[in-house]
Amino acid sequence: MSLIVQKFGGSSVANAERVFHVAETVTNTYKQGNDVVVVVSAQGDTTDDLIAKANEINPRASKREMDMLLTAGEQISASLLAMAIEKLGFPVVSLLGWQAGFVTSTAYGSARIHRVEPDRIRKELDKKHIVVVTGFQGVNRYDDMTTLGRGGSDTSAVAIAAVMHADLCQIYTDVEGVFTADPRKVKNAKKLASISYDEMLELATLGAQVLNNRSVEMAKKYGIELEVLSSMTNKPGTIVREANKVEEMLISGVAKDNDVARISIIGVPDRPGLAFKIFTKLAAKNINVDIILQSVGRNGTKDISFTVNRSNLQDTMDLLGPFVEMIGATSVVYDEHVAKISIVGAGMESHPGVASTMFESLFDANINIQMISTSEIKISVLIDEDDADKAVSVIHRKFYGEN
Amino acid sequence: MSLIVQKFGGSSVANAERVFHVAETVTNTYKQGNDVVVVVSAQGDTTDDLIAKANEINPRASKREMDMLLTAGEQISASLLAMAIEKLGFPVVSLLGWQAGFVTSTAYGSARIHRVEPDRIRKELDKKHIVVVTGFQGVNRYDDMTTLGRGGSDTSAVAIAAVMHADLCQIYTDVEGVFTADPRKVKNAKKLASISYDEMLELATLGAQVLNNRSVEMAKKYGIELEVLSSMTNKPGTIVREANKVEEMLISGVAKDNDVARISIIGVPDRPGLAFKIFTKLAAKNINVDIILQSVGRNGTKDISFTVNRSNLQDTMDLLGPFVEMIGATSVVYDEHVAKISIVGAGMESHPGVASTMFESLFDANINIQMISTSEIKISVLIDEDDADKAVSVIHRKFYGEN
Repeated sequence: MSLIVQKFGGSSVANAERVFHVAETVTNTYKQGNDVVVVVSAQGDTTDDLIAKANEINPRASKREMDMLLTAGEQISASLLAMAIEKLGFPVVSLLGWQAGFVTSTAYGSARIHRVEPDRIRKELDKKHIVVVTGFQGVNRYDDMTTLGRGGSDTSAVAIAAVMHADLCQIYTDVEGVFTADPRKVKNAKKLASISYDEMLELATLGAQVLNNRSVEMAKKYGIELEVLSSMTNKPGTIVREANKVEEMLISGVAKDNDVARISIIGVPDRPGLAFKIFTKLAAKNINVDIILQSVGRNGTKDISFTVNRSNLQDTMDLLGPFVEMIGATSVVYDEHVAKISIVGAGMESHPGVASTMFESLFDANINIQMISTSEIKISVLIDEDDADKAVSVIHRKFYGEN
Repeated sequence: MSLIVQKFGGSSVANAERVFHVAETVTNTYKQGNDVVVVVSAQGDTTDDLIAKANEINPRASKREMDMLLTAGEQISASLLAMAIEKLGFPVVSLLGWQAGFVTSTAYGSARIHRVEPDRIRKELDKKHIVVVTGFQGVNRYDDMTTLGRGGSDTSAVAIAAVMHADLCQIYTDVEGVFTADPRKVKNAKKLASISYDEMLELATLGAQVLNNRSVEMAKKYGIELEVLSSMTNKPGTIVREANKVEEMLISGVAKDNDVARISIIGVPDRPGLAFKIFTKLAAKNINVDIILQSVGRNGTKDISFTVNRSNLQDTMDLLGPFVEMIGATSVVYDEHVAKISIVGAGMESHPGVASTMFESLFDANINIQMISTSEIKISVLIDEDDADKAVSVIHRKFYGEN
């Protein structure tokens, strides 16, 4: 007998029919003799509907009251799923975040899980109940409701799996697993049987929005095996686990990230510490800088280019405008029609030719590379946004054969 | 400085506009230097919508899961009201039943309040917060969500007022107070400035659905002054308080109750204990019997008539059918086209002519009285349903003058 944690997102429980489909998946797992804890998000558009209600009344409502409002969403979906499981004739109980022992930080809207006290869950499992837990939420030390922020339900599921030493944590979603490229764009994209935590983290960061990063980090920290799979089909998904247990592949995936803007400061005087000052200024405003490139400009000056998320572009420009003048640089320009294409794979560490293979495929397709960034298991290039899909396609073909 | 508890029903917070109207009422009370605790029901149709969602999935869902589902309703309205109060610039916090210290029995769907532990409410009031509390709900000793059943939010408000020794408990509703008769039917109906707990209880029982009976009983027990008033207008309502503090009126109101059916067992043999057996049988099935009349029938037999709620009619007939045969009675017949008209007033105890004045007005209007029942402060008659509105009107005119 195993303990299995299953997490279902909002689209998986969007209506009565889907709720029953989830109930069947859950009860099938239970029938095989497993203890089952189910973590569920709010139904389909519930969270958006609640946010709309709040905005109608007070667009600047406190985050505390927003969390009070939003946590009602999972309460509704969890009780409805429990009712469906009752209807199928199985013993079940639904628990709210605070009932399931989720104690979080006080940061309303983006709380972090401090600890999970699983006494109640354990007691219900001992009674042979299927336990449905509201994802995305907890309670802070003031006994107030909190939410975990975007993707929080994944984290809820992994946290329960970690604290209860679950044998498997299944993240049901609307894709069948982790693919070598976006299967909607690349015909020949292959589903991976397994992938390492680190590769998954790189892919998540790069816009392959399959799993929430915090949940993968937590799974890695506690050694929880994750399975990403579809709630619609009954096919096996992709297992995320320790690197030494995953199959050897040169690269695990090709990912595209459009949420990028490039900023260039032209003609920076060649004085020590100026680049440092620029990036300290951005960090103080919580603006994450990704790829950085420094090149020699005219007359002994330097050009410094870097990328930020598009949502940070305006703030970055506002911040740099006066500063650039102050340090005597020539100008600051930006380009938001760029995309970042990355290949990820633990195998590339021991295969030096991977980068050149990637660059060759782009050259063959006449795609210009603006910037390059590399890590042990990742190579990213910045290119024109219009070339992005083509780039993914030609790189994928180069590594995996005909699309 | 006073502590004032204000309760608003679902129609009072049905949409954003009304939520703001409530927020203004609350903040006006706060601005006058009062501590304010607000108890709020779920918005308009929310509870019905949630019940519909549940029925779509499992019409026989457990009451535990129903309560888990339904308590989300007040959570939504309470947080939205708090956001509106924030928008008006006042300090506020919303609390769920369990946060506000409502500990109830384990009877899901119709839990009784065991106690209210008001530490959190007190702490928030000390911080000068307006406190918004979800009505209708609490938590039982298993730490599970419970609901208090119909009219539960009134009871929530009175319970807080009782345990915190509030100076006033205002029940905002969609009528302006307690009237001498239904103001939609009787033009000359007068709003009472005050009424005693006992009179209010009799009126509530009689279908003047202004206040939930449990809340009036609790207010009486703890000596909490209630005010029933409209959330739409700003007029003073009706104060419900100790009998010795209310104005002396011969009768406080004329009420009509259509939820009545009359059952007659014809030809019951004149043996001791038979009537007792009949009513024990009904009590065992939780069927409340109201007016009872025993009359002499033919051949030394008796006829026994009584009234029940219409919803109990079928059960009662099913129960009595075989029993009537067994005891040798002739037959059992029923009439559901009846109505109960009652006058209520603490003053009638010392004025013996009240009953005859009531009967005279019905006689003058040619309305036949089928049954009569009296208590210290109430006289009820059973009449044909078609005569009900006319009966209320002529009785009201007789006591209060021209309509």
